[in-house]
Amino acid sequence: MSKFIYAFEEGQQSMKDLLGGKGANLSEMMRLGLPVPNGFTITTEACIEYLEKGGLSDEVKSELQEQLEALYAKTAKKFSDDSLLLVSVRSGAKISMPGMMDTILNLGLNDKNVEKLANNTNDARFAYDCYRRLLQMFGQVVYEIPMHAFESYFNDFKKQKGYTTDADIPAEDLKAICERFKDIYTEEVYKPFPQEPLDQLNEAIEAVFKSWNNDRARIYRELNEIPHDIGTAVNVQEMVFGNSGEKSGTGVAFTRNPSTGENKLYGEYLLNAQGEDVVAGIRTPKEIETLNTQMPAVYQAFVDVTHKLEEHYHDMQDIEFTIEDEKLFILQTRNGKRTAKAAMKIAVDMVEEGVLSKEEAILKVESKSIDQLLHPAFDAKALEEAEVISHIGLPASPGAATGKVVFSAADAKAQAEAGEKVILVRPETSPEDIEGMIASEAIVTTHGGMTSHAAVVARGMGKCCVTGCSDLDIDTKNKTVKFPAGELAEGDIISVDGSTGHIYHSEVQTTHAEHSTEFEQFMTWTDEIARLKVRMNAETEQDIAAGYDFGAVGIGLVRTEHMFFGEERLIQMRRFIIASNHDERVAALDELKKYQAEDFEKIFRLSGERPAIVRLLDPPLHEFVPREREEVETVAAQLHLSVEKLERRILELQEVNPMLGHRGCRLAITYPELYEMQVEAMMISVQKLKEEGINCQPEIMIPLVSTIKEFTNLKEVIKNKINELNITVDYKIGTMIETPRACLIAGELAEECDFFSFGTNDLTQLTYGFSRDDAGKFINAYMNDDILAIDPFQTLDVDGIGRLIKIAVEQAKSVKPEIKIGVCGELGGDPKSINYFNTLAIDYVSCSPYRVPGARLAAAQSK
Amino acid sequence: MSKFIYAFEEGQQSMKDLLGGKGANLSEMMRLGLPVPNGFTITTEACIEYLEKGGLSDEVKSELQEQLEALYAKTAKKFSDDSLLLVSVRSGAKISMPGMMDTILNLGLNDKNVEKLANNTNDARFAYDCYRRLLQMFGQVVYEIPMHAFESYFNDFKKQKGYTTDADIPAEDLKAICERFKDIYTEEVYKPFPQEPLDQLNEAIEAVFKSWNNDRARIYRELNEIPHDIGTAVNVQEMVFGNSGEKSGTGVAFTRNPSTGENKLYGEYLLNAQGEDVVAGIRTPKEIETLNTQMPAVYQAFVDVTHKLEEHYHDMQDIEFTIEDEKLFILQTRNGKRTAKAAMKIAVDMVEEGVLSKEEAILKVESKSIDQLLHPAFDAKALEEAEVISHIGLPASPGAATGKVVFSAADAKAQAEAGEKVILVRPETSPEDIEGMIASEAIVTTHGGMTSHAAVVARGMGKCCVTGCSDLDIDTKNKTVKFPAGELAEGDIISVDGSTGHIYHSEVQTTHAEHSTEFEQFMTWTDEIARLKVRMNAETEQDIAAGYDFGAVGIGLVRTEHMFFGEERLIQMRRFIIASNHDERVAALDELKKYQAEDFEKIFRLSGERPAIVRLLDPPLHEFVPREREEVETVAAQLHLSVEKLERRILELQEVNPMLGHRGCRLAITYPELYEMQVEAMMISVQKLKEEGINCQPEIMIPLVSTIKEFTNLKEVIKNKINELNITVDYKIGTMIETPRACLIAGELAEECDFFSFGTNDLTQLTYGFSRDDAGKFINAYMNDDILAIDPFQTLDVDGIGRLIKIAVEQAKSVKPEIKIGVCGELGGDPKSINYFNTLAIDYVSCSPYRVPGARLAAAQSK
Repeated sequence: MSKFIYAFEEGQQSMKDLLGGKGANLSEMMRLGLPVPNGFTITTEACIEYLEKGGLSDEVKSELQEQLEALYAKTAKKFSDDSLLLVSVRSGAKISMPGMMDTILNLGLNDKNVEKLANNTNDARFAYDCYRRLLQMFGQVVYEIPMHAFESYFNDFKKQKGYTTDADIPAEDLKAICERFKDIYTEEVYKPFPQEPLDQLNEAIEAVFKSWNNDRARIYRELNEIPHDIGTAVNVQEMVFGNSGEKSGTGVAFTRNPSTGENKLYGEYLLNAQGEDVVAGIRTPKEIETLNTQMPAVYQAFVDVTHKLEEHYHDMQDIEFTIEDEKLFILQTRNGKRTAKAAMKIAVDMVEEGVLSKEEAILKVESKSIDQLLHPAFDAKALEEAEVISHIGLPASPGAATGKVVFSAADAKAQAEAGEKVILVRPETSPEDIEGMIASEAIVTTHGGMTSHAAVVARGMGKCCVTGCSDLDIDTKNKTVKFPAGELAEGDIISVDGSTGHIYHSEVQTTHAEHSTEFEQFMTWTDEIARLKVRMNAETEQDIAAGYDFGAVGIGLVRTEHMFFGEERLIQMRRFIIASNHDERVAALDELKKYQAEDFEKIFRLSGERPAIVRLLDPPLHEFVPREREEVETVAAQLHLSVEKLERRILELQEVNPMLGHRGCRLAITYPELYEMQVEAMMISVQKLKEEGINCQPEIMIPLVSTIKEFTNLKEVIKNKINELNITVDYKIGTMIETPRACLIAGELAEECDFFSFGTNDLTQLTYGFSRDDAGKFINAYMNDDILAIDPFQTLDVDGIGRLIKIAVEQAKSVKPEIKIGVCGELGGDPKSINYFNTLAIDYVSCSPYRVPGARLAAAQSK
Repeated sequence: MSKFIYAFEEGQQSMKDLLGGKGANLSEMMRLGLPVPNGFTITTEACIEYLEKGGLSDEVKSELQEQLEALYAKTAKKFSDDSLLLVSVRSGAKISMPGMMDTILNLGLNDKNVEKLANNTNDARFAYDCYRRLLQMFGQVVYEIPMHAFESYFNDFKKQKGYTTDADIPAEDLKAICERFKDIYTEEVYKPFPQEPLDQLNEAIEAVFKSWNNDRARIYRELNEIPHDIGTAVNVQEMVFGNSGEKSGTGVAFTRNPSTGENKLYGEYLLNAQGEDVVAGIRTPKEIETLNTQMPAVYQAFVDVTHKLEEHYHDMQDIEFTIEDEKLFILQTRNGKRTAKAAMKIAVDMVEEGVLSKEEAILKVESKSIDQLLHPAFDAKALEEAEVISHIGLPASPGAATGKVVFSAADAKAQAEAGEKVILVRPETSPEDIEGMIASEAIVTTHGGMTSHAAVVARGMGKCCVTGCSDLDIDTKNKTVKFPAGELAEGDIISVDGSTGHIYHSEVQTTHAEHSTEFEQFMTWTDEIARLKVRMNAETEQDIAAGYDFGAVGIGLVRTEHMFFGEERLIQMRRFIIASNHDERVAALDELKKYQAEDFEKIFRLSGERPAIVRLLDPPLHEFVPREREEVETVAAQLHLSVEKLERRILELQEVNPMLGHRGCRLAITYPELYEMQVEAMMISVQKLKEEGINCQPEIMIPLVSTIKEFTNLKEVIKNKINELNITVDYKIGTMIETPRACLIAGELAEECDFFSFGTNDLTQLTYGFSRDDAGKFINAYMNDDILAIDPFQTLDVDGIGRLIKIAVEQAKSVKPEIKIGVCGELGGDPKSINYFNTLAIDYVSCSPYRVPGARLAAAQSK
């Protein structure tokens, strides 16, 4: 029989699956002898059972009774007698989900117990403050009473009475507020606040379990690829009170700076405050060092705890603590979330401190987070000239972003979907705002600190964020914001610097990110450890330079279609398309060849002796013809053609399913002269560079092959063309594996190919039968309904596409062990996918330049 | 070292691959002691070598010299001396290709030798007739001089001189004709006819080899799925002369009637004629029995030969013979082509005669040919009233067809491509007409007999054909044809009865084909022998009745989309599509349900207790909305909707790649109420039939599944709906396997499915990445360039699709051995594909009703 509830003494760190992260760490800290209030954890299995059955089972109920009895004994307190046990109820899943799940403090209070608390503590103000909080949190969490129902009354009350802070409110007024809060229950949910502590506890536990499936939680999980079926644990813990006076307080701290990685305690606290006050960002908290002045002994005790925890966990910790009457309690520890920059610095520092090996260190940085380091920053000179809107905000999450001001998450989402770049400007953010935050380029808040909801979530997303810009005055109703020197309306453009906390008017020019020495050091280690190499998908000079700068070992995909665009080129391409015979086609292509030879020279010059795969033309011809009547007329004139004839040709080129139509190598079977031209342009430039002493490594890739003869036929066309040119450079010819059939005949293809490159985009479309252009209509429903656990265009579908790739790789390597195999589709830059590719005999992955460092790290982290 | 040339004494029947069918059988007949003129065969390997190298190798040349010497010795004749050896040169591939390859007779004649021949035979007329034929055949075959260059001169000459038959032309005139023929060489190809016999031989051999790759040959091979790389052999044989007077002749005969199968010698001959005269249909030949009167001894000898050959080959033979001066020579034997009806009767007769076992007998009928037996015939009553155009034609190939008259192959092709049904009416046909014959519904000729080109080719294609309608007078130039009672112009409609040889004016009503007792007997044997069962794809009452009549064991695919068409239904379907909420959708579907319950009742009543798979709705919703502006307006009015709103919805439904879009089960994930309605309509009707005592076997099929959760989710929707209905019938739920991913996760799917049905159409599209709608643009080029050896939509691609199906079947059966697996795509009716499916653990194939008998036979023939 399962055990559904564990006292903190019964658990340990390794039981995360069962106890959740928070519960397992509370147990572990108790084992380490740290000051943790007593309590117990109801397991994730109880949650799963609850969600299946729709109620708590008898087993859980009876274990709960036993654990409560034990807690009574340990604390020498009881619900509802004079000793007065009060507890907190907090959720805690295996994987930390900050701000996502809900907390209830001061549970056990009721109309009678609040008087007992006032008597016991001789502090009626404190007692009614606790009761007020309980009423509010319980109402919100358990009965889903909207926050504003309580908040607006509370704020109006303060205003009316002229109180500026919560601490100004005397006991009687708090009591009156509590009475009003209880009325709100009846008005909102037609039932009173439950007076019986055991009822409160049961309802709270069920509410936490239920909240596992609320929309915010699901969205967070999807964003972070956390499974939906692992459930959450619930921690029930004796209350300690940070709000019991000026000798009490509550705070949050990181053992190192989570933004920069600096090895220095970093945190905030508030005196006479409870629970969520610090993270909610309602009052601006004090820096942790200040505590050394205010309560030196408590500070020292806390510093000792932080050292102990970092040593024990071998990682930077994020700790929550409460001080009750100058006594320190630790309420939570976990590995701290950090920026990529900080993660890298901490990892490198810890290797130098001898705490971690290189192999361990590279596991401490999330490969997905690296691209934060690579985003452009604002140009220093441009910044000097930019008009500052605010310079007192906190640099909560690094980066530089420009966009239009919006004042609500809903507006952010709607405008982003309409293609706008937006910046969400809010007094503060809450979990309801998640989708709007995802949709924004940056987030700015006027309240809250570095650990506020906005800051934590934005860092997690690698999104630029500035918090605590208290000189901004937002009017969300009229959609304006006043700043010291003026006013902004919705739609005005601002620029946000997440590294300094400054906000600027209008757009500010950006520059490339500079790499830190830690970055260079760290990335060197990844290359030492990784088996898989990383190339880039790129064709512009700028991108190619960036990719090599980011450590790509070559180009895995040059898409040549862009070489056919540009005004003069397009005219020639259209001449090719409307030509009625081979000679006319060749004449048009000859013009194009001149331009393209120049393009190729640039690409190969930048690559030098590093390999570069050039994919011959892939898209269907209809992508090159005009669409609108007016444009058709212009083009017809350019081509000395009647509009009717051009329209007829355009009509001929139309396809029902262009994805499955006349494109890729199929074009060249029909018009071999097309690939002949491309190969000639390429080889002329390669030959030229050879004469300059640069031995380029061109690799010619034929796309969309599904039969062996498509490949052999075009290989012959290409070889004949090159032989004709009398050119002496080495080259390779291979194919893009992007149809299921190509995977199935990979053995045959391998005999003829020098290399393979998997095109995972088309392969995914064909294997599922999903058109990326159309799947939008149902793929969201699929993710919501759990029909797809992952978006297969983002992360490899191991069971389907993965299997097909495995079949292909095994066949190919068995026929030709030396064949080079790479992946150049979207998934080439995805860490989870890279991990799977590493298990196959694949030689390299290729991705967009900015994803190269992340891919290098993912390759090193692959097992 | 290979041997490239075999004397007839050196070969045998089993060497077909090397010697071709004609050569191997000549060798075999020589071994049997039959009267075969001496000669030798140049192998198919020599042909392949020739085509690769572009010339005859030294080895072949030196072997040719040796074989010629040997032939001189055997015949005691030599080229160019007084003994005067003349030879025929004929092609002969492994697989018979009638009329496709070319023949040269009388090779060895030249200006001098023709005089020797005249002296030797004392018959100058004969000698010059031979020379004239050589000049003409050699010119056509070797130099590709158009036939009409010779024919028009020859015919004009006869007309001018008043000669009605060739035999009327005296020696001098033939000599003059020869002179003129030689001039034609210089005019047409700028070189003279080669006078040296050895040069003639070399050029003739090369011409035969080259002709392997001419267009006609390639088209014939594609039509008959003969590989392009097997090459042809060349047979060089001493001439015997059927044109050496009235004691000589030439003929063709079948050992049984190739049209009806009747066990009676069936053939034709011409006296004083040579080679192609009979098959060319230039003079109307005599029935073979007449020979018994004209030359009884020769006739008796021939009858003996036919018995010997049929006994030896265990099959009906098609024999060519020549009589020279009352001496019989056999020039060729092969298994005779026959109509399906004849094949079946011969097979059943030979089992009764004790010659064949049932297992051997079922191999004697081509499964592809069976559908000839199933085509509708003309309604007897309608025929009585129809206006006869001609009733003297020969019933060359059975069937009944109606169409518009065309007078050239090119017109036939063009009009058929434009969607017309056409009937090709020609004086005679020749290999150039192949494509036009393919495009026509029927072929009518005014000349020629049952073994003319038109007759042989049409029978091979299973196409209706009437030959020898000599009362028709065709004017190909003005595109009219006179018949005894009137005149027809191009485009007039006629009906052709290939079973009687009658031609009718206008369209004549048709009826179902009646099955012969042999058919019933034969098909019973196939069911005894076959492992694979055959179901039908059908949904209309007429088709379902036909399919059961043709021996289907159930329905493998009911497509339900037609149940949404029809005026009132379409309105409801459109209401469903534009509905903005669930309730509106359900209201529209409730209306549809009433109609569909009636449809299902009909289907299940016809099926009785036989299983019937119903595929739930598959096509995307945009197939149900109006396209034209005018129609949009009408529909908007019907739906009480603004045109703008309807247009917006239509626009929303548009897809870039509909094949890969929102269709199949994806629709039902979005709108479960759609499948709920279909299932309800189905199960209500099944329940009703159960109450009548009929235990139907509904099998519910979910289309286009690519993930396990699509299936489990919809299975639950369906089960819940059925449970709600409180219905007690049994049913199965399975899926259509038609995406590559479904194949790859077949094990998982099998755990949840009662059955699988492979949808080979979509599976082929996705595995190749070919859209059937668009592939037309390149697939012909692919077949011509040999990039595709087969059209994978017609015949299973074993290496690609086949491999995927194998993976799926193996996985599924390993997980659930009892799972029922079928194939319901196009390939389910294709014999070659059925043969492959039989090697897998597939339970049944399903095809259109008319293909059911062919599939049953193919299943029985599978190894």
